[in-house]
Amino acid sequence: MSVEQHCKQAETFWMQDGPDQDVILSTRIRLARNLKQLAFPGHQTVEDTAKLLDKMTDLLPMLSEKTQSNWQMIRLQELTADQQRILIDKHLMSPMLAEKAESTALLLREDEAVSIMVNEEDHLRLQVLLSGLQLEQAWKLANEIDDVLEAQLEIAFSNEFGYITACPTNAGTGLRASVMVHLPALVISKKIGSFITGINQLGMVVRGFYGEGTEAIGHIFQISNQISLGQSEEEILANLQAIIKQVVEEERKTRRQLFTQIPLQLRDRIGRTLGILSNAWLLNGKEAVQKLSDLRLGVELDLLEHLTYQELNGLMVQLQPAWLNQASEENLSADQRAVQRAAVMRSLLTQTRMKQIEEKEE
Amino acid sequence: MSVEQHCKQAETFWMQDGPDQDVILSTRIRLARNLKQLAFPGHQTVEDTAKLLDKMTDLLPMLSEKTQSNWQMIRLQELTADQQRILIDKHLMSPMLAEKAESTALLLREDEAVSIMVNEEDHLRLQVLLSGLQLEQAWKLANEIDDVLEAQLEIAFSNEFGYITACPTNAGTGLRASVMVHLPALVISKKIGSFITGINQLGMVVRGFYGEGTEAIGHIFQISNQISLGQSEEEILANLQAIIKQVVEEERKTRRQLFTQIPLQLRDRIGRTLGILSNAWLLNGKEAVQKLSDLRLGVELDLLEHLTYQELNGLMVQLQPAWLNQASEENLSADQRAVQRAAVMRSLLTQTRMKQIEEKEE
Repeated sequence: MSVEQHCKQAETFWMQDGPDQDVILSTRIRLARNLKQLAFPGHQTVEDTAKLLDKMTDLLPMLSEKTQSNWQMIRLQELTADQQRILIDKHLMSPMLAEKAESTALLLREDEAVSIMVNEEDHLRLQVLLSGLQLEQAWKLANEIDDVLEAQLEIAFSNEFGYITACPTNAGTGLRASVMVHLPALVISKKIGSFITGINQLGMVVRGFYGEGTEAIGHIFQISNQISLGQSEEEILANLQAIIKQVVEEERKTRRQLFTQIPLQLRDRIGRTLGILSNAWLLNGKEAVQKLSDLRLGVELDLLEHLTYQELNGLMVQLQPAWLNQASEENLSADQRAVQRAAVMRSLLTQTRMKQIEEKEE
Repeated sequence: MSVEQHCKQAETFWMQDGPDQDVILSTRIRLARNLKQLAFPGHQTVEDTAKLLDKMTDLLPMLSEKTQSNWQMIRLQELTADQQRILIDKHLMSPMLAEKAESTALLLREDEAVSIMVNEEDHLRLQVLLSGLQLEQAWKLANEIDDVLEAQLEIAFSNEFGYITACPTNAGTGLRASVMVHLPALVISKKIGSFITGINQLGMVVRGFYGEGTEAIGHIFQISNQISLGQSEEEILANLQAIIKQVVEEERKTRRQLFTQIPLQLRDRIGRTLGILSNAWLLNGKEAVQKLSDLRLGVELDLLEHLTYQELNGLMVQLQPAWLNQASEENLSADQRAVQRAAVMRSLLTQTRMKQIEEKEE
């Protein structure tokens, strides 16, 4: 698949159906790795950078062979700004990789389940991104790819500190495991604040949708391990898994409570959102993301027909400026994007309806 | 038709299609008449009241014969509060008639185009209510019925003051002609304030939908003549007709301007309203009336399919508390009415859609 094709397809691997998808959007495993005898990114000479990129280019055939998948290496500087942004919106790479486009690359497995950011904060950041809650499977896959990398490259490792990373907070395992969760009921019932405090106290970090420093737009939160040193990968993952299971249960319980206590208010909220999104002709990005959460809640509560999780996940890319620009083949103004965004929404929701209430005998 | 049937039918004569219905909902002619040698309402003994009501009962056969229509006399005290309110919501009578139910009656022509309030502020208030702009036709019909009344009853008339009325502001012709207008474009474009000032200066009164002292809910205004003394009926009507024609033209012109200047904003506004009303499960009265105006604007601008003026007019009764109570056969709480009101709206709008934009070549 060409780079263009990767960018022309909003759907990506993690967007398919997955375990516990009524609460969990995706699971990510990220491993930070650095090469011996090469300056860290940010301290490199032009020659250092070229050397790293050359090494990865050379590695590509072996990587494809050993993992029995097609990989390609994308030089960020060869992409348009919109293409870079689409890869970010699909969560295949970080904004930082694009900011340093002249010295970075992305190695991408054809199915987009695995990617390796080259020369981001570390020399290599391997990431596996799966649908729903799949910490174990994601870790297994990351580990396999990491074994291939370690067999081919001289990875910096200290018996005292474990994997050496550019920032010490990532040293040790170099592992960050994170899960994207949709918690509308905890937000609506105003339980979310104390809930986040509790998760923090258990050594996990809760962030908004687009990573550090951003708000939790659309009731989507990222929960990940805070420390990567002093615990084994298995311990880190087991801890996170246990906490996420609690989050899932608490969100589900709160949804059931809301549905018992205020069934009509919930139907009204979701119905109005569906009505607005099905009939709006101007839709700005913030409103779209906010309303998308109610729409997802409608699917989660089984109140909507003809709308799937995959479609909702796809919208997380398709409603973004870069996708709208690319689809129109021009650089749209915010007003023009509001028109196009509304058209994308209306088009998807043509068949979507509220399910009828089952009449209960009193 | 029985009283129950009049109350079980939301549609009434003025709600059918009429001239200039894109701006004008209805035309009303009201004539105030009083009988000689009988105390005014409010100053009557029980015997006076009985005498007036008996006179009207006696008149009923003659009235039916002379007007070649079936009339019936409804004693307000025999109606439930909801039935009274439905007749008010249909504009067939005033709230005051119900407030004084023990001493009042309503004479109603079977088709509901003509009614006579007995013992409201005056002994008799004859009203004709037609669809759209029909001042001349309404006056002609009122005049015919008035001739029948005057032939049978001794009506108080002075050569100096004309018809004698309880309140001097109604003396002279006893005529109030009023037109119900929908002016969303003048409101949206913020021209309405100076427009109302201008109409006032021309000797007309502009009021909100439900008469004196109420706000202009849903962008519907009532325009009527201020004075009934010192001008002939024909002069009063010609003046009002001229002013209403200007109002119609100005509103239409402003709609065209808005549609040229902000076509997408208008579509967005009307689309969102349609979406909300088609999918809400809780709808309070104020929101319903406000949103109804946008829906009507959608029909006026020919942006909606499967929605008629008659249906919109019917909603002006069907969304009211009394109708919702009657339909549920119980006295609903405000919350219960919000549920029922939303159901009425959804049910009507099942087939209603935005029309497609005609693609213009650029």
